[in-house]
Amino acid sequence: MLPQWIIEKKRDGQELSEDDIRYFIGGFTSGTIPDYQMSALAMAILLRGMTSAETAILTNVMMMSGDLVDTTSIKLPRIDKHSTGGIGDKISLVLAPLAACCGLAVPMISGRGLGITGGTLDKLESIPGYRTDLSEKEFVSIISKCGCSIIGQTERLAPADRKLYALRDVTGTVPSIPLIVASIMSKKLAAGLDGLVLDVKCGRGAFMKTGADAKALATALLEVARHMGKAATALITDMDQPLGRTAGNTLEVIEAIEVLKGGGPRDIIDLTLALCARMLVLAKVTTTESYATTMLRAKLSSGEAFARFVQMVALHKGDTSVLSNPSRFGAAAIRVPISARANGFVSNVDPDAIGRACLVLGAGRTAVVASVDHAVGVSAMAKVGKAVSRGDTIAIVHANNTGSLEEASQIVEKAFEVSAEEPKAPQLILGTMQSQS
Amino acid sequence: MLPQWIIEKKRDGQELSEDDIRYFIGGFTSGTIPDYQMSALAMAILLRGMTSAETAILTNVMMMSGDLVDTTSIKLPRIDKHSTGGIGDKISLVLAPLAACCGLAVPMISGRGLGITGGTLDKLESIPGYRTDLSEKEFVSIISKCGCSIIGQTERLAPADRKLYALRDVTGTVPSIPLIVASIMSKKLAAGLDGLVLDVKCGRGAFMKTGADAKALATALLEVARHMGKAATALITDMDQPLGRTAGNTLEVIEAIEVLKGGGPRDIIDLTLALCARMLVLAKVTTTESYATTMLRAKLSSGEAFARFVQMVALHKGDTSVLSNPSRFGAAAIRVPISARANGFVSNVDPDAIGRACLVLGAGRTAVVASVDHAVGVSAMAKVGKAVSRGDTIAIVHANNTGSLEEASQIVEKAFEVSAEEPKAPQLILGTMQSQS
Repeated sequence: MLPQWIIEKKRDGQELSEDDIRYFIGGFTSGTIPDYQMSALAMAILLRGMTSAETAILTNVMMMSGDLVDTTSIKLPRIDKHSTGGIGDKISLVLAPLAACCGLAVPMISGRGLGITGGTLDKLESIPGYRTDLSEKEFVSIISKCGCSIIGQTERLAPADRKLYALRDVTGTVPSIPLIVASIMSKKLAAGLDGLVLDVKCGRGAFMKTGADAKALATALLEVARHMGKAATALITDMDQPLGRTAGNTLEVIEAIEVLKGGGPRDIIDLTLALCARMLVLAKVTTTESYATTMLRAKLSSGEAFARFVQMVALHKGDTSVLSNPSRFGAAAIRVPISARANGFVSNVDPDAIGRACLVLGAGRTAVVASVDHAVGVSAMAKVGKAVSRGDTIAIVHANNTGSLEEASQIVEKAFEVSAEEPKAPQLILGTMQSQS
Repeated sequence: MLPQWIIEKKRDGQELSEDDIRYFIGGFTSGTIPDYQMSALAMAILLRGMTSAETAILTNVMMMSGDLVDTTSIKLPRIDKHSTGGIGDKISLVLAPLAACCGLAVPMISGRGLGITGGTLDKLESIPGYRTDLSEKEFVSIISKCGCSIIGQTERLAPADRKLYALRDVTGTVPSIPLIVASIMSKKLAAGLDGLVLDVKCGRGAFMKTGADAKALATALLEVARHMGKAATALITDMDQPLGRTAGNTLEVIEAIEVLKGGGPRDIIDLTLALCARMLVLAKVTTTESYATTMLRAKLSSGEAFARFVQMVALHKGDTSVLSNPSRFGAAAIRVPISARANGFVSNVDPDAIGRACLVLGAGRTAVVASVDHAVGVSAMAKVGKAVSRGDTIAIVHANNTGSLEEASQIVEKAFEVSAEEPKAPQLILGTMQSQS
């Protein structure tokens, strides 16, 4: 067998066998198949597609390329959530301790976002001392104690994916549904899950711009879950405006804490409850989502969810004093309000523009090795539909230098549109899809 | 500009600009753009195609990646021929001196075939002493003296093509018309031609199996010639049976000598005359092909063409004594006749099988660095349509060891089909196409 025979097979639109995929990905991971053959195959996959059976095999082979996290000692249902990524998405910070309060184990291995506002790990690292680089043993031990842990990918988790992702990034082969699905699922399932809830973002600020594209990605994700014998549900959710009212690492942690204490913005609460209720139903903790939602609301208002978050942070060596008193978080040097330019209703908030502003401020990273500024970002963002008068504050830009402040402020100002007519209320949850297992 | 932006453009089916192609191929040749980006782009080109304008730019950029041969001191019309390759194709050996006899300059830079029966260079190297590795200066000097020279590619000729071809070979990106065309034309036009005649092979033993595919390749080749301001004609010719009656390096040289002396098989004579007549018309040496053909036949029967071949070989330091007395060529140790298994007519000779038999015997090479055995091959092959009786010799296998003899003999035997019905006479020249300049 020669690697080019497999490339030729996919190039000509044929289905690859399990042996083909195992041989190619194995060779690529060990280094006997060079990058230039992998990138040619990736382009052929992007343009020719893969069946769900092929994608499931690819997922499995990539997952098995490294260590699996042994979570079998955890006797609770192990359910995780994955979001395909959007601006202001701090849901995991609320969802993990909340689900843990209801009897789930949430073994969350998270990415360090490249671009825009930083990933969940960057957000957690706003908390002084919080360690994301724990060993598998520490990870499992924390989950046993408090029901959840959020850490970063170890070197030994799905190394085939790490190597392939780096190559895809520079060869124009990122936007391929089979490759995206295998990348997501190989890492998620390596944590040893019983079930998974997927938050597939759709809209201007998401990778999938249209409902049809988001549905195609959700379908492919669920198909692979089915092939691999995992219970899964996908929500397709709106990313036409940022989630919540903040974007930027510390600012988002503070907003998550508000929600965990029973307050916070409506959309963060609603989306967290919707995702978390599906997790409880998948785990058979409750039979209906409405009962799950009632239970979850109680955990937020009672302070139980917040207490669980504090416990998790403490087990990760984070400074819990900032959680009770968020004014003690490191803040940006300059805060400048952005004002509405007219009377009317906020009709549009461009999530991409908010992401770009955060990048300008230093909240995200442009290269894998870059560091992020945790304090900067945008807060107090008005939501679509809000009635405003000219001069009202519609956002606050947090910056650490005047150059980035000016550029970011201009971007943020343009991100907001105000119209005389009241816009249609945006729909947060656009659809729900179940794995057909 | 980032290389992946160009890959993404082609991936999405857009036309690349001259700047895009220049930047990418320049970077690939100098090494700043790595192989893995080039192979992803090659796969995107294969699956998305290129316009003739893009292909012409690619050809030009690849040609300009190295040195151009300065043939401006040659005052005769500089016309070359290129064949896309087939079994038993020794046309160049006859055609170059024959065209030179009629007042053309033929600056032929040839490839060293990979696979099957060896390339034109391997055939010439059957002549003891013949040097194919001459400098540009020696090449031009020989053409000035005798009107033709056949040498190998120098390191400095179209290095972008050499590097890209090696990569395409192992990444499943060989069968792309724009990439094939740019590879052929960048090397051919680097020799400084006024015109080019293309022999596009079609059939079982050719790269292009169908008439439609051969026509598409011919069209793309002529389009690029037109974009680059070069006169060109393409013939589409049959490769459903081997050309001539021999395959293998020395055996093919001996057959070429027979034709140069006014004898030899009908198909070799006819194809050489057809191609050569088009060269004379392109060069405006004659206005009609029929007059050109009459002139060419006279050059063969008078011995002038053979004398010119002898002169060319002498200028390349080859031993000319073998040319007058081919029995002095090194011969294979074992010669075994293959017999017809039935009475009837030869209805089929599989060129691919003859090529495989030559490879088994050692006449071709499986790797770029491998050496070839010049003496081995197949001779006295019966042509399609020949009436045979059971036991008649239909081919002779020339081998240097009994192991390869046995395997090759079986392959050759199966290559010939004999049927009771007389088959339709095969057509040698399937079509003619002109550049629209």
